Amino acid sequence: MNDPSAANPLDRIFNARSVAFVGASNNATTMGTIQMLNTLKSIFAGPVIPIHPKADEVLGQKAYPSLRDLPEPVDLAVLIVPTKAVIPVVEDAIARGIKHLVITTAGFREVDDEGRRDEEHLVKLCREHDLRFVGPNCIGVLNAHSGLNTTFFPYRHQAGPLGLASQSGTYVTQTLDLLARWGIGLSKGISIGNAANIDLADALDFFAEDEQTRAVAMYIEGVRDGRRFFEAARRCAAIKPVVALYVGGTQSGARSGASHTGALAGPDALYEGLLRQAGVIRARSVADLFQWGWALATQPVPEGRRMAILTHSGGPATSMADAVERTGMSLPRLSESLQKKIRELIPHTGSATNPIDLTFNLDPKLLNQTLPEMLLESGEVDGLLMHGLQGSSFFEGIRELAGDLVDLDVEQLTSFTSYMAQPLFDMAQRLGKPIVMSAFYDRQDNVIRALQDHQVPVFDMPERAVEAMAALVRYGELRKRTAS
Amino acid sequence: MNDPSAANPLDRIFNARSVAFVGASNNATTMGTIQMLNTLKSIFAGPVIPIHPKADEVLGQKAYPSLRDLPEPVDLAVLIVPTKAVIPVVEDAIARGIKHLVITTAGFREVDDEGRRDEEHLVKLCREHDLRFVGPNCIGVLNAHSGLNTTFFPYRHQAGPLGLASQSGTYVTQTLDLLARWGIGLSKGISIGNAANIDLADALDFFAEDEQTRAVAMYIEGVRDGRRFFEAARRCAAIKPVVALYVGGTQSGARSGASHTGALAGPDALYEGLLRQAGVIRARSVADLFQWGWALATQPVPEGRRMAILTHSGGPATSMADAVERTGMSLPRLSESLQKKIRELIPHTGSATNPIDLTFNLDPKLLNQTLPEMLLESGEVDGLLMHGLQGSSFFEGIRELAGDLVDLDVEQLTSFTSYMAQPLFDMAQRLGKPIVMSAFYDRQDNVIRALQDHQVPVFDMPERAVEAMAALVRYGELRKRTAS
Repeated sequence: MNDPSAANPLDRIFNARSVAFVGASNNATTMGTIQMLNTLKSIFAGPVIPIHPKADEVLGQKAYPSLRDLPEPVDLAVLIVPTKAVIPVVEDAIARGIKHLVITTAGFREVDDEGRRDEEHLVKLCREHDLRFVGPNCIGVLNAHSGLNTTFFPYRHQAGPLGLASQSGTYVTQTLDLLARWGIGLSKGISIGNAANIDLADALDFFAEDEQTRAVAMYIEGVRDGRRFFEAARRCAAIKPVVALYVGGTQSGARSGASHTGALAGPDALYEGLLRQAGVIRARSVADLFQWGWALATQPVPEGRRMAILTHSGGPATSMADAVERTGMSLPRLSESLQKKIRELIPHTGSATNPIDLTFNLDPKLLNQTLPEMLLESGEVDGLLMHGLQGSSFFEGIRELAGDLVDLDVEQLTSFTSYMAQPLFDMAQRLGKPIVMSAFYDRQDNVIRALQDHQVPVFDMPERAVEAMAALVRYGELRKRTAS
Repeated sequence: MNDPSAANPLDRIFNARSVAFVGASNNATTMGTIQMLNTLKSIFAGPVIPIHPKADEVLGQKAYPSLRDLPEPVDLAVLIVPTKAVIPVVEDAIARGIKHLVITTAGFREVDDEGRRDEEHLVKLCREHDLRFVGPNCIGVLNAHSGLNTTFFPYRHQAGPLGLASQSGTYVTQTLDLLARWGIGLSKGISIGNAANIDLADALDFFAEDEQTRAVAMYIEGVRDGRRFFEAARRCAAIKPVVALYVGGTQSGARSGASHTGALAGPDALYEGLLRQAGVIRARSVADLFQWGWALATQPVPEGRRMAILTHSGGPATSMADAVERTGMSLPRLSESLQKKIRELIPHTGSATNPIDLTFNLDPKLLNQTLPEMLLESGEVDGLLMHGLQGSSFFEGIRELAGDLVDLDVEQLTSFTSYMAQPLFDMAQRLGKPIVMSAFYDRQDNVIRALQDHQVPVFDMPERAVEAMAALVRYGELRKRTAS
C-alpha cells in the first residue's frame, strides 16, 4: 500500500466499466436507488446492475438476488445496505471474484465500540481476500468524464480539471449544484469516509497521475497515518497544485470531526507546518478550497507578485487594490509610457495608473482585448485581475425597463457581447499569465457563463478573485523553492 | 451642518414625492434615460418629470426644456449632464426654487485641478443659495419602500431593513442583483460620490433616525472631515448596528480610491482604532459588509458567545465548529441531560454533543422546530447555527432522475417543506436568540427562499454563517461595553 508505483486501486474504481448497486430498489426515494439512478441516467456507457433480493427488474434493469448470482464479476460494487448486512455482501463479492467496492453504509467506527469492531472485521476480511474498498460511511466516487457517479446527487455541469478528495461526503454531493453555479468543473471526486482501506493518500497518488486532473482540492478532518498521508501529499504537490482545507485543528473542529468520520485530528500548527512542508496550499474555508482549486487548475502560474487591475467600476477596483496589498502582492504604478498609451484609449474620467478604471465603457474591445493584452504583454505585471464584465444581463435589464419604448435586439446584442469576449477565452494560456475575475452577475449572464465555460475563473466578489490570485502566486513561489 | 438635530437634507431627498431628471431622453440606452426609467417603472407614486431641451415628451411623460420651466418646484432634481453643463442647470434649479439635487455627473475633483475648481465653484454656488446635493460623481439614492431610484439599476427584490451608504456607486447598482440573489433586502441606499455637500456623516445621521433601517452598511474609501464623520458614526452606532468596509488603508487602496472619488484615505491602523472607538463593526470584504449587515439588521443580539450547531451534514458541521472557535466564540459540549433528550430523537449514526448532526433526516419537524427550540430554550447556548435545510431542490432532483419511474407529487412535497419550515420564520424573534444558516442551495429552492424572505439569514458557505454570527456577538459585546 505504501508503494506509489504499485497499481492504484482507484484506477480501477474511477474507470470502472461495469457497476452493481446492492441496495437499489424500485422505490425512487431511497438512497441506494438514487445512487444507482445517478450513474444509470448519466453518460456512463457500461452495464449498471441492481442487486435486489426479490425483484426481477429494478429501474428497468435486470436485477440479481445477490452479487454471487452475477453472470460475470463487475469492476465495482456499491453497497448501500444496513450496517450488519455489509459483511455478508462482502462475502458475496469475494465469492464472485469482485475486487473493488464502495461501501456507503455508515454505523462503524464513527459511532461506537461495536461499530469499531465491525469495521476491524471488515478490514481484515477484505485484506485477506485482496479486496479494495472506499468507505465505509462515504458517498463514494464520481467521474465527470465517464458518468460514473455513486453519490446521491447528479453531476450536471461540464467536466473540468479539478480533482476533489474529501473526508466529508457533503463536499462531493450537496456542493455539486453550488460548483455548477460557480462555473467550476470537476474531473473526478471521491468521498473517502472512514478510509478504512482506501485513504486520502491513495486518492492523492491517483490524482497525481490522472491526466484529466490539473489541480487537487482536499477536505481533511484528520488523518490516522500521518506519515503516509504527508508523503503522498508531497509526491502529488510536486507534480500539480494541491490545496487543502483542514478543519480539525481547533478543539471544536476536532470533536466534530471525531463524531463525523472518526478522524484523528492534530493541533492546527502541526498540520500547518506539515502541509507547508509538503508543498500544499492551505485553504481557510470551503470557498477557498473550491475557488483556489479552480484558479490553480485553470490558470498559468505567475512568475511574480505584480498585479494589474482592470475594471470600469471604481469601488471593486479599490477593494481589489486593498486586497492585493493585504495578500502580499503588489500593484505597481504603471510606467509613464504605458500610462500614456492607456490614457489615449480611455475616457478622461478614467484612471490609468493601476487600477485601470475605464469608468463608463463604450468600446467593448478595449476591456475584452486591447487593454488586457497591453497589460499582460507590457512586462510590467505578472497577472491580471478584472471586475465587471457582463453581457446579456445589461441588455435584458434595459429590455425589462424600456421594452415598450425601444426596439432593442437583445439576442443580437447578447451574442455580440460573447463574440467580443472571445479573445479572453484563451488569453491567459496564450500569454502565459493568469487572469482571475469577479462579477456581481452570475451564469445567467451569457458573458460570465462563456468565460467560466472556457475556464476563466469568475468569482462573485472582488476579494475572492484577489485571494485566488494570491494562491496562484504562493504556488508559483513554492514551486520555485522546490525546484531550486 | 454639524448639528445632528437640524433637519437632515436626506429626509427630503429619500422621501421626495416628485422628481425631475435632467438628461433623460427617448434613447433608452443612455444613462440618464435608464435612471429615469428605474423610478418611472417602479412603485413610485409621484410625478417623474423629464427635462429635455427639445422633446415635448420623453418616455411618455411631458417634458420641459429646463428646470426653470417647471410649473412648480420638484422635491428632487437629478442631473445627468456633461460636466460643464452642471453649473447652468444648478442655476436653473435655483431660479425655480428647487432645494435638493442628485448630481450624477463625473469629471470633478476626482479627475484633475480644473475639475477641482469646478467642484469648488459648485459647492460655493449651492451654499449661497441653500441648495443641498448628493454627489457629484455619484449614482444617487434609492428608497426600496417608495420606489424612488435614481441609480441606473432596477431594485427588484423586496424591501428590507438594511441601509446602505457607499462612496462607490457600484455597491448601490451592480450589487442589487447580487443582493437579491442572496436574499438581502435594502431599506434605502445612497452613493455619495465626491460628497462635496452631503456626505457620509449626513447619511449616518439620516439612517440613525430612519425607522425602516435596522442596521447600516457603509463602504468607505476615505473621509475628508474625519472628526465630523466619526462623531456621526458614534451617534448612529449608539442607536443601531453599523458595519463598515474601509479599503483606503493600504497604499494601493488609497491610490485607487483617490483616483476614484478623490477620497483622502488614512492609515489602516488609524481607521481601525477610530472605527472601533465609534462602535462600528469593521468588515474585511464586500461579502462581510452585506452579510454581516444583513445578520445585524435581522437578528436579535446574542447575550454571549456560546453557539449550537445543528445540521444533517457532518462536513459543514465540522467547518462551522472550526470557524466558531477561530472567530472567538465557543461550542459548549451540551449537558448530559440535554444530550440524552436529543439522542432519543436522532438516528444512532448521528451526534448529540454539539454539533448536533442528524445525518440522514427523516422527520422534518425535528430539524425545523423540535431541535432548534430545544437548543435555544435550553439556556446552554446564545445562538444557533444551522446548515443544510432544503426543499424543492431535493424533490426536483429526484423528479429529474426518476420522473419516469415514480409518480412523485413534487408540488405537494415542496409546499409541505415550506409548511414545515414555518416555525423557523419567527423563531429567533420569538425566543430572543439569533439564528444564522448556510446552505449550498440558493433561492431556487423554496425553503431557502421562504427563510430569506422572512429575514432568516441563509448564506452560501458555513464559514460565512459563522462569521456573520461572530459579528452579532461582537456587536452585543460592544453594546454592553457602551451601556456600562
